[in-house]
This record gives sequence, structure tokens and C-alpha cells, in this order.
Amino acid sequence: MIRRGFQVAARLGHHRGLLGDPLILIFPAQFSRFLPEKTDLKDDALPDASWCLDMLSLDQEFLEKTKSSGWIKLPSFKGKTQPNGAVSGPCPPFSGCDTAHLSPDKGDCRIFTRCIQVEGQGFEYVIFFQPSKKKSVCLFQPGPYLEGPPGFTHGGSLAAMMDETFSKTAFLAGEGLFTLSFNIRFKNLIPMSSLVVMDIEVEKIEDQKLYMSCIAHSRDQQFTPTHPSLAGVFLQLQLEEESPQ
Amino acid sequence: MIRRGFQVAARLGHHRGLLGDPLILIFPAQFSRFLPEKTDLKDDALPDASWCLDMLSLDQEFLEKTKSSGWIKLPSFKGKTQPNGAVSGPCPPFSGCDTAHLSPDKGDCRIFTRCIQVEGQGFEYVIFFQPSKKKSVCLFQPGPYLEGPPGFTHGGSLAAMMDETFSKTAFLAGEGLFTLSFNIRFKNLIPMSSLVVMDIEVEKIEDQKLYMSCIAHSRDQQFTPTHPSLAGVFLQLQLEEESPQ
Repeated sequence: MIRRGFQVAARLGHHRGLLGDPLILIFPAQFSRFLPEKTDLKDDALPDASWCLDMLSLDQEFLEKTKSSGWIKLPSFKGKTQPNGAVSGPCPPFSGCDTAHLSPDKGDCRIFTRCIQVEGQGFEYVIFFQPSKKKSVCLFQPGPYLEGPPGFTHGGSLAAMMDETFSKTAFLAGEGLFTLSFNIRFKNLIPMSSLVVMDIEVEKIEDQKLYMSCIAHSRDQQFTPTHPSLAGVFLQLQLEEESPQ
Repeated sequence: MIRRGFQVAARLGHHRGLLGDPLILIFPAQFSRFLPEKTDLKDDALPDASWCLDMLSLDQEFLEKTKSSGWIKLPSFKGKTQPNGAVSGPCPPFSGCDTAHLSPDKGDCRIFTRCIQVEGQGFEYVIFFQPSKKKSVCLFQPGPYLEGPPGFTHGGSLAAMMDETFSKTAFLAGEGLFTLSFNIRFKNLIPMSSLVVMDIEVEKIEDQKLYMSCIAHSRDQQFTPTHPSLAGVFLQLQLEEESPQ
């Protein structure tokens, strides 16, 4: 499914870059990283040697659900997005992107939650989406490079993982594109490299906004790193299909 | 200043790891990374070739204030925390830390906001703290590895940087140790590698909680990536000084 980036940009006058330029051309790339389209790029949401047993078996459970219960496994790529929708290449030369002081070999981009390339050290995760129920499950195993208090995961890394899952869910459930707000109420620290399961649901869609909740818990639901009142609100955009050329 | 980790742990019954173990021994390390103590480790909050001109000159402005206006520059280390307070070595063997499935060479830890070691690609930042006014300023230049929408910074990376600055400010201003909650209301996208200035203040301290606000803006204050209503709440702990041995 391809959409008109320019049409979207025209409706986003209040979402502008640092220099006030409209966000032209960025949306096709956004879609390409959200949707389970075919690509030659390596999907990083596949099991590797760092995944713990709980993560492996839950991943398998949800893969079974993709065959029978309408769930979709979302692919995830480490990186490098381009305005033309490809997911490789150097950092795009947006006018607001102040990279003139960086050397050319440092101009590559990576999706933040795939910024660490060593297996098991950073964000290990896979997201499954259920379209008819407008909900997602993210299996997240935070590695030792995401440390906050010694031995435990940084609260900011949990926030980042939630924002990424919120954003994918918001787009797929109702074309929500931008995080307008989110809040987190922490309850327990998360030991690094343990498994966090995040259940995200769209609670309501109203006035072009999606209201979403997230409950984070351990596999057995005995441990909850946050209170269940998390909420992400996404701006919904009714995009038009691109006309055939 | 050294504190008693065990005494702290005893008061934190509701802040436990995944397996229910008390958070014993982690606090001295927490302090060592927050306080501007002498160390042989490299301070990563120093200018490098990736810093943009605005960041360099604002850094210089605040360094001048450390000489005349009571501001303190906080050091920041990439890595590897140990329970004994040192900031180097392998991941500590906490009982809740499920790293048995990781190979030994993958057991090192890094503070999340220093997880990317290539200059200019990840979190470039420096934090200054003003004790008498209980406020901080963080100069943050998000690099291309923190990408969200193509060409722009991931909302989760801004959340992570805020949480890190909140936590340092909360500890230094009133021994606040744990983020209880925070919320962000986004307003504009942040072009990657541009400078974000975050002004964080302790609004009040009440019932062992610190209530904090953050305003994020560009240097000239014309651009604000978030609404000014951000708030971080930190649990305050009245810790006892360690007795001389």
C-alpha cells in the first residue's frame, strides 16, 4: 500500500522540523518500516542465540497464532531509512538535519530501537499485531547496554520500546502517525536480559486521536514493571490512496 | 559520599527485581555515576568533533558559570557498572539478571544513554546542575542512530534522555532515586543531530516525592519539541551516612 507523502505533509502544518520546513516525503518510508512487506533486508525480529527460553517459546506461540488466529508478525529492520521508502543508505539530507559537521562516513541512520548491533546487548524484541482486535504484543528482552541502576534496565529504554510499539500499533490500527503524548508509572525495576511482555490495545479512536494503553508484565504475569495505566495518544490521519500512474 | 546500600535496600520492599530479591548493593554504584567524583575513567560529557557549534558554545557558557555561579558540570561514563561502585567490569551477577544464555564476552554493561560509542551517532549530551536552585540543564544532540521518523529523532530517545536527566537531578537535589512516573506531550519533531536544550527543575518536594518539570527547546527558544508540562516524580529516600570503619 503506497500513500501520498505530499498530501500528508500538507495536513501537518503544526508538525514541522526545526527550521519550519514541512515534513515532505517522509511518510512512504514510515509505512515501509511498519508494514510486513517483502524486502531483501534482514528481519531483526527473528530469534538469535541471545533470546532466553521464555522469549523463544512465546515467540513460537505467537507464530502459531499467525497461522490460525489472524495475528501478524511485524518485521523490523536495523536500519538506514531513506525518503524514497527504502530502508538502506545514508542519512537523508533534510534541511533541518544539521549533519554538516559530521564526517561523511558517520551519516548513516538506524531506527533507535535497532541501534545496537551486537546480539543480546541492546533491544531484542518482536512485535505481533492482531488487526481485528486492534492490539499488539511486544516481547522485549532488554540487554546490558540498556542499563539504568546497575544490573537493571534503564526506564528510558522501556519508554522507547513502548513508544515504538505504540507507534506501530497506532499506524496499523488506525493510521495514527505521531505520538502526541505518553506517560509511564513505574512499579518495579526490570533485571537486564529478562523478558518483558507488553500488551498494547487501542482503547478508543475519537476526534482523530487514538487512545492506547499498555500493560507490561513478566510471562507468568506475577511481575509488573509498570502500573497498567500507561497511555499513548496518536494523531490519526485519514490518508488517501495513491492513484495508479 | 558513601552510603549504606543495605540500609537502602531494606526500605525498598516494593522495589524488587523479577525474582523478588531485594535490591542489595546497587546504590553505591548509583551514587558514583551521579556525583562529580574524581575517577580515572574517561568523561564522555566532553566536547568531541561531532558537537555542533551551538552545543559547543552553550557548553562553554555553562562551564563559565561553574566558575562564578555555582553550577556543577556532571561527568558521564559510558560504562560498565559494578556493585562495588566502580564503573568498569562485567555485568554484575544479580540473581534476577538472566544472562546465563549469553556468552561470557557479551556480559558487559553500559549506561543506556552511553550505549553507542561512535562519536556523534548516538546520545551526545552534557548535564549541568545548579544545587541552590535545584535545577539542571541538559544539552542534547541526538545522532542518526536514534532515528524515529526518517530524518528525525525517535520520541523514545528524547524520553530516555529526559529520564536520565530527571534521575540525576532528583538524586542531587533531594536524594530521589527511582522514577515513579513521567509523561511527555510532544509538539514538534526533532531533526536528528540538532541541539535540544532541556531545562529541568524540581517544582516541589512533598511526602518523600520530588515533582519535576522539563521544558525542551532549541537554543533560541523558538522551537519547542514538547509542551512544557512534562513531569517526573521521584521517590525520595533519606539515606544515612556510612559510619567510619
